[in-house]
Amino acid sequence: MLFSQSTYIERRRRLRELVGNGLILLFGNNEAPMNYPANAYRFRQDSTFLYYFAQHRDGLVGVIDADSGEETLVGDEIDIDDIIWYGSVQSVKDMAQEAGVSRTLPMSSLEEKVDSALKNGRKVHFLPPYRHDNRIYLSKIMGVSPDSLQPSLPLIQAVVEMRSVKSAEEISEIERACSIGYKMHTTAMNLCRPGVTEQYISGVIGGIAASYGCITSFQSIVTMHGEVMHGYPSPLPLEEGRLLLCDCGAETNENYCSDHTRTSPISGVYSQRQKEIYTIVSDCHDLALQESRPGKMYRDVHLDVCRLMTERLKDLGLMRGDTEEAVRAGAHALFLPHGLGHMMGMDVHDMEGLGQVHVGYDEEVRPSSQFGLNALRMARRLQEGFVVTDEPGIYFIPALIDQWRANGTNAEYLNFDVIETYKDFGGVRIEDDILITKDGCRFLGKERIPYHIDEVEEYMRNRKG
Amino acid sequence: MLFSQSTYIERRRRLRELVGNGLILLFGNNEAPMNYPANAYRFRQDSTFLYYFAQHRDGLVGVIDADSGEETLVGDEIDIDDIIWYGSVQSVKDMAQEAGVSRTLPMSSLEEKVDSALKNGRKVHFLPPYRHDNRIYLSKIMGVSPDSLQPSLPLIQAVVEMRSVKSAEEISEIERACSIGYKMHTTAMNLCRPGVTEQYISGVIGGIAASYGCITSFQSIVTMHGEVMHGYPSPLPLEEGRLLLCDCGAETNENYCSDHTRTSPISGVYSQRQKEIYTIVSDCHDLALQESRPGKMYRDVHLDVCRLMTERLKDLGLMRGDTEEAVRAGAHALFLPHGLGHMMGMDVHDMEGLGQVHVGYDEEVRPSSQFGLNALRMARRLQEGFVVTDEPGIYFIPALIDQWRANGTNAEYLNFDVIETYKDFGGVRIEDDILITKDGCRFLGKERIPYHIDEVEEYMRNRKG
Repeated sequence: MLFSQSTYIERRRRLRELVGNGLILLFGNNEAPMNYPANAYRFRQDSTFLYYFAQHRDGLVGVIDADSGEETLVGDEIDIDDIIWYGSVQSVKDMAQEAGVSRTLPMSSLEEKVDSALKNGRKVHFLPPYRHDNRIYLSKIMGVSPDSLQPSLPLIQAVVEMRSVKSAEEISEIERACSIGYKMHTTAMNLCRPGVTEQYISGVIGGIAASYGCITSFQSIVTMHGEVMHGYPSPLPLEEGRLLLCDCGAETNENYCSDHTRTSPISGVYSQRQKEIYTIVSDCHDLALQESRPGKMYRDVHLDVCRLMTERLKDLGLMRGDTEEAVRAGAHALFLPHGLGHMMGMDVHDMEGLGQVHVGYDEEVRPSSQFGLNALRMARRLQEGFVVTDEPGIYFIPALIDQWRANGTNAEYLNFDVIETYKDFGGVRIEDDILITKDGCRFLGKERIPYHIDEVEEYMRNRKG
Repeated sequence: MLFSQSTYIERRRRLRELVGNGLILLFGNNEAPMNYPANAYRFRQDSTFLYYFAQHRDGLVGVIDADSGEETLVGDEIDIDDIIWYGSVQSVKDMAQEAGVSRTLPMSSLEEKVDSALKNGRKVHFLPPYRHDNRIYLSKIMGVSPDSLQPSLPLIQAVVEMRSVKSAEEISEIERACSIGYKMHTTAMNLCRPGVTEQYISGVIGGIAASYGCITSFQSIVTMHGEVMHGYPSPLPLEEGRLLLCDCGAETNENYCSDHTRTSPISGVYSQRQKEIYTIVSDCHDLALQESRPGKMYRDVHLDVCRLMTERLKDLGLMRGDTEEAVRAGAHALFLPHGLGHMMGMDVHDMEGLGQVHVGYDEEVRPSSQFGLNALRMARRLQEGFVVTDEPGIYFIPALIDQWRANGTNAEYLNFDVIETYKDFGGVRIEDDILITKDGCRFLGKERIPYHIDEVEEYMRNRKG
């Protein structure tokens, strides 16, 4: 267990209080089959289950009766075959005791427990199931088809309220992940040279995460095609003169994440054109750092970044017209089709499985349907203890440029003839994880991965290997 | 595509012929959510889909009408959002054409196609779905609950018949995986020293696989607790005097696998007791190599290995009584609770998802229920072109020893007082991938990872780093 027993007891108490009544089911994850049932992907516990029940084994469900206060850890004990194949593990009883949960039940009795609650007209709360085996199981015990399952809004809201604000203990685990992320990123910068393949770099940095007992918090993006938001590494060798975008993070054994992006010059120095675009992105990054503080809407930080980006792209001759109108029309989204950032914590997009509308939005700030702004994952007012990413980027996406040009989309704000000459540019993104403090924000991670142009070029000049 | 178009066309033709009639559905895999829907594990295509339809994208289904011969690749085209987030990929039409498939259809029309076949009383063939999303989808289009889905025996048998015999082209891809496996294993041997952690070694060798654009063919087993069959690496540092069991393999971008096990002395040399046990295992390994040839039942090779092991454990005073009777009673399974090996190919346990009884057994050789022998995955007669693992092991599993001793299981063949003194030994396994040739077998992989005691000790003496 990562934290003390009392931490988990208090979390469950508060969850009960917030949800008010009914039977709360928190599903742990099961093994996820890769190419046949027994060849599973590396086990990843569900974050919310971990947050309240602390235990990493597969095949567990946490049940909290919000009316009676009774807490149960549901799961089957292992047998001799399990011991032969997977080694001894704690009993379910011991795991429950460790987490301060008074009761245990075998999995076979859960259906009856739920059935009896439903028959008594009680509300059965569960979160949106993203694992399909849990969908099948829930569908069976709730007696509805997998497509008709109705997750509980009060439960979602309670979990979001609690998990959004990180405790000092959680921050310290995130900083552990950031330290490993630092090693991953600086290693990528050390290896970033013409001829080395994207897959090689991605493999080595994945190995660094794993050698610390971590996983990568998501599939590493290591690509010369920075204009593809999730560009997976290819077997192609790096080319002189291009940029390498590396977006990756570590996730500790206790499933706290890091998530950083750096865009490095494969030749060791940026070209004039790369400098011009890169500087806009790093200035946008710094602007977000200046503006982020409790009470500030993150959507407004995003829009201020878009304004600065538009101003500066006008200076370069890529955009034109009134900045305010261009941003209102979403013209900048040709270059920045995603949002400034997202929550981060036990999930690298924290709590995304609960529904972005519940995590990044509230009654005050509603989602937009405008292209670009509709990809903003975090919009609501920041609070002390939130962890968010600050990750502006500028991308030249040939297919999108062609589409907008053909349709005349936002043509009054865009100089397509100039934009056309950037089609082989790729993309730049700079991303850090920031903690909202009492009166501002700070970087997470003891060591800062270089990102200002002079720092990056200096790092690359002095690197070993 | 790994092989020529005509290879895939011919494979589908033969499959049609073997199945005879009805509509054959071969499901590709979808993205598998890790901790929320958009954070997926690394995509792994289904092996059988790849074998017949060659394509790596998610969201595809191959349909073969065994009566009319019509072949269809079912899948949805990507849109501009997909291009922005994941880059351009081939269209479904292009993928179909490349694989020599004449028709494509969008996913929405598959249900109707299946529905019309069922209404016309035709058989709809599908394989056992191991991914739960495909189970849900199949349940919907077949109109039965997920638990009532009935996979097609003729389809399973046809696929097993075809995939069991590897072509020269397939062997060469497996040898590519073996070369990377060689690098992983020798790196593990280089790193195997007191103080280094299991997770560190596992991380570094995983990074090697990934740096070649591979994945590990299963979660690497790197453990001082060799007696746990699937002992995942711990954060514990290696200890002087103990053994490190490393069971790992690579899987190429085209999803052909390697699978080797070595058990190395952490101190660089084996102790006398370790030598005694290790030599039995390496002699068993060599015996299997001598005996494996077309026409030989792999169950008989397994049993001959068990006989040799029993003889030699008698010499050491761990077993006693008549060897033949002891093996018939399954007494040796206290030390070797698993089978000698399994098929290997595109799945590291090749085709295991189709059901072990169909892959490793036939009408002549039926599964046993005896402890130990019931874990034999490959029992039937070997054929030229089969790839199997040869992986004997000797383990001292404290919980199993206690159970057998308490129950008096096979007590007439076991000297429990002596066995008791080995409880801290751990386990030894040696595993290689072998190809059944015209008149015998050979190792797969250009370079042989050292495994005889003198070779291992020499390697460890001369290693760098």
